[in-house]
Amino acid sequence: MRRPISLTFGAMALIVSLVMLVAAVREGDAAQEKKAAPQIGRFESRSSVWGKHYPRQYATFMATRKSDRITDMLKKEPALVVLWAGYGFSKDYNAPRGHAYALEDNINTLRTGAPVDGNSGPMPTACWTCKSPDVPRLIAKIGEKDFFTGKWARHGGEIANPIGCADCHDSRTMALTVTREYLKRALDAEGSLKFADVGKEEMRSLVCAQCHSEYYFKKTPWKDASGQDKVAGVVTFPWDNGLSAEAMEAYYDERGFVDWTHKLSRAPMLKAQHPGYETFVTGTHGRNGVTCADCHMPVKSEGGVSFTSHQIGNPLDDMEDTCLSCHDSDPEELKAVVERKRERRDELSRLAMDILARAHLEAAKAWELGATEEEMRPALQDIRHGQWRWDYAVAAHGAFFHAPEEVLRVLGSAIAKAQEARVKLRAILAKYGAGDYEAPDFSTKEKAQALIGLPYGKLVEEKRRFLKGLRQQWIEEAKEKGIFDPASREGIEDKTSYQ
Amino acid sequence: MRRPISLTFGAMALIVSLVMLVAAVREGDAAQEKKAAPQIGRFESRSSVWGKHYPRQYATFMATRKSDRITDMLKKEPALVVLWAGYGFSKDYNAPRGHAYALEDNINTLRTGAPVDGNSGPMPTACWTCKSPDVPRLIAKIGEKDFFTGKWARHGGEIANPIGCADCHDSRTMALTVTREYLKRALDAEGSLKFADVGKEEMRSLVCAQCHSEYYFKKTPWKDASGQDKVAGVVTFPWDNGLSAEAMEAYYDERGFVDWTHKLSRAPMLKAQHPGYETFVTGTHGRNGVTCADCHMPVKSEGGVSFTSHQIGNPLDDMEDTCLSCHDSDPEELKAVVERKRERRDELSRLAMDILARAHLEAAKAWELGATEEEMRPALQDIRHGQWRWDYAVAAHGAFFHAPEEVLRVLGSAIAKAQEARVKLRAILAKYGAGDYEAPDFSTKEKAQALIGLPYGKLVEEKRRFLKGLRQQWIEEAKEKGIFDPASREGIEDKTSYQ
Repeated sequence: MRRPISLTFGAMALIVSLVMLVAAVREGDAAQEKKAAPQIGRFESRSSVWGKHYPRQYATFMATRKSDRITDMLKKEPALVVLWAGYGFSKDYNAPRGHAYALEDNINTLRTGAPVDGNSGPMPTACWTCKSPDVPRLIAKIGEKDFFTGKWARHGGEIANPIGCADCHDSRTMALTVTREYLKRALDAEGSLKFADVGKEEMRSLVCAQCHSEYYFKKTPWKDASGQDKVAGVVTFPWDNGLSAEAMEAYYDERGFVDWTHKLSRAPMLKAQHPGYETFVTGTHGRNGVTCADCHMPVKSEGGVSFTSHQIGNPLDDMEDTCLSCHDSDPEELKAVVERKRERRDELSRLAMDILARAHLEAAKAWELGATEEEMRPALQDIRHGQWRWDYAVAAHGAFFHAPEEVLRVLGSAIAKAQEARVKLRAILAKYGAGDYEAPDFSTKEKAQALIGLPYGKLVEEKRRFLKGLRQQWIEEAKEKGIFDPASREGIEDKTSYQ
Repeated sequence: MRRPISLTFGAMALIVSLVMLVAAVREGDAAQEKKAAPQIGRFESRSSVWGKHYPRQYATFMATRKSDRITDMLKKEPALVVLWAGYGFSKDYNAPRGHAYALEDNINTLRTGAPVDGNSGPMPTACWTCKSPDVPRLIAKIGEKDFFTGKWARHGGEIANPIGCADCHDSRTMALTVTREYLKRALDAEGSLKFADVGKEEMRSLVCAQCHSEYYFKKTPWKDASGQDKVAGVVTFPWDNGLSAEAMEAYYDERGFVDWTHKLSRAPMLKAQHPGYETFVTGTHGRNGVTCADCHMPVKSEGGVSFTSHQIGNPLDDMEDTCLSCHDSDPEELKAVVERKRERRDELSRLAMDILARAHLEAAKAWELGATEEEMRPALQDIRHGQWRWDYAVAAHGAFFHAPEEVLRVLGSAIAKAQEARVKLRAILAKYGAGDYEAPDFSTKEKAQALIGLPYGKLVEEKRRFLKGLRQQWIEEAKEKGIFDPASREGIEDKTSYQ
């Protein structure tokens, strides 16, 4: 009667063993295929070249194009426009699409603006970092510090392929490989899993963690070959104190780091960037040794050959080969459980967004009425922390599933901080005769963008000019350099939220 | 390779089958033992009488005495004193002890006061409802409405035994039985599980739900045998709209129900009373058909006889026979997971308590400065809702484990509401010239009780007089009535927080 069945934790040990077995089988396949295909160049960024040797993996990678819907998050949650006033995300922010669109979406978003040459802004080079296997190629060529120096448009002609094979694989061995050095530095700084101790299983999460993690652009002075002083903005994970919302918040506070100064509230803001790995490790799957690839890249079988699907997406779209490999459950029941997790997250997230938007608008009113820096500072610090925590909890789209309890905890503390700001602001408003001030209506994207003084029409117009002009030049440059892959663009329609 | 192991949900189906098997075995035992012991009278409230026939069950029930530590929650969390100002819980509130102490603790707490005769207060008869098997006995004798009429002290000589056998078992068949009719009415009103459809498995949770649920005392007019008008305060579960915090809140709001008016803020308050069943059903164990008894009353074996342990307590104290029956895990790892759940709950609960206490004190200041009813109403409604939600989330001690996500969601919304009250109060305070008001120190039980004007020393003195006086009289009356069970008191020291 005792221990009739193996549940969760014990079961995970079994999963890990099975996964290792599968990994061994897969590697065997890869090794066989490798014999026939040793000709891929180092840092080959064109995935179609790899695809000739790994047609199944390539075909599934290309199937990420099926995830092609543009969901305008600013339209869905107009409070976001207020939250990000003065920052690129208030211009344009869509739910993510398949990996195959990573580069297109980065180039097309209003966030990256409309540069007219290699020196014009608004974004730094670091904004390419996670969009293309041309990034490790270019870093290998010019060095990391040089890569991270200058404006985004500087590398326009060099970054030609969307996320692909060379981002995670070593072309000589096909082994998983970390192509972004900053992840290695972050693991070593955090200390609980030094990069030197990383095993094969862990690599099945860490190649993802290269991009699905929180980062900032660390100002790093350096001298070029001619001895000239330069400053790089190096992608850096703020992991020195740990991976929790509070640990990273302390990291940023200790350094006085500010992503941007809020246009309305003038609060010294932080933007959380999809801390997916950080939240994942706190949840049930992460704690029990399940890796990203286990659920997002299931093993498939075709013509007697088993291979790893590279159609990375929502495991719930393919439950048969993902969840149900371990959970012997009714899939509809499992979906309902996940949906309830999402609803709980949405409820607290919407509360937090509404409260934070009001806080920004109330702070703007206080400034307008003559509040002083000294009066405002404590409230602005609360806004900084509240918004950071909210963003940490929701920016990584899967966190509500990977780590539902951690997400709800952090959202609860975000709400407390943001409301604390409003309590303080209310006293300031009252002091300046506006104790009953009510924030204006921000219930649609248009209203919210008007409120923050965003020249939306102008941004769209400039962007269109850029897409027809400089953008086309980049494609020609890439062709000349031999890095352009027609397959990566073939049949792709440029979809944006503003068309 | 596919579905190598059965996890969580599927596994639960297996558990349910196994549990049913065990239930069948147990019933077989019971039937055998029953043959030898058909002599227990209906509504026999002395557990030692049952214990002669069921020595193992009785011995384990008596072992609940091992859970004997008094933890003064008001000392641990002084904000509670402020939260409950004007209500009994601000006088005395300890963490729960074993079932064997249920009656003692009810009689000894300062909450039940120091009545001097059967007509004196402060509490109504309903406060006995969950403390003793003398309750169903007395209800059978005088009727439910009569039982629920009058002051607590009225039944002092009739309620002599702590929670025991007759609370959950029918003495003629030994079957589990619902002895409190209000649970049947509540199930039928809620509708998702009508009492007529309840099966044996569900009874293994519902006998617990008789007491481990949210309730209030519903004013119910009735006429006695002589035609005289009376008003009963009938224990009622507010389940008509559902079991969630919001559904019950709406129930109370629709009826304008108020548990008490807060002494400081004058907010129309609700006190949540351990909604354990309600939160349990939303969590993983509840959704998968695990019952309360599966984890809190494991099957034990002694001399070849298997029986159900009646030492109801924390399953983590007996993991070998509880958690590890299903989870093939490292017990220390499981404990750590549960501990992290507790920490998350504690973090948000402490935030909520601090915020709510400040809100009450700020409201008190606003009244003091001359704020009007109309000005205060919206803030007081926010306090009502915020405190109710916090209390719903934490009052059932196991909820952080049974339903961690639901608990964190509700705490998040509690924090939002409570802070919203403070934003409104800040504007009122500012209007009356106290925009920078800071709530006074409530960091110890003593300071907090002084703040709310609680005459603690006097309450203790009166209580001692009651315990030496009327209380002793009740014991004599019970002896005369033949309902006093020496075994239920033998060796029990009267432990209280105020000795």
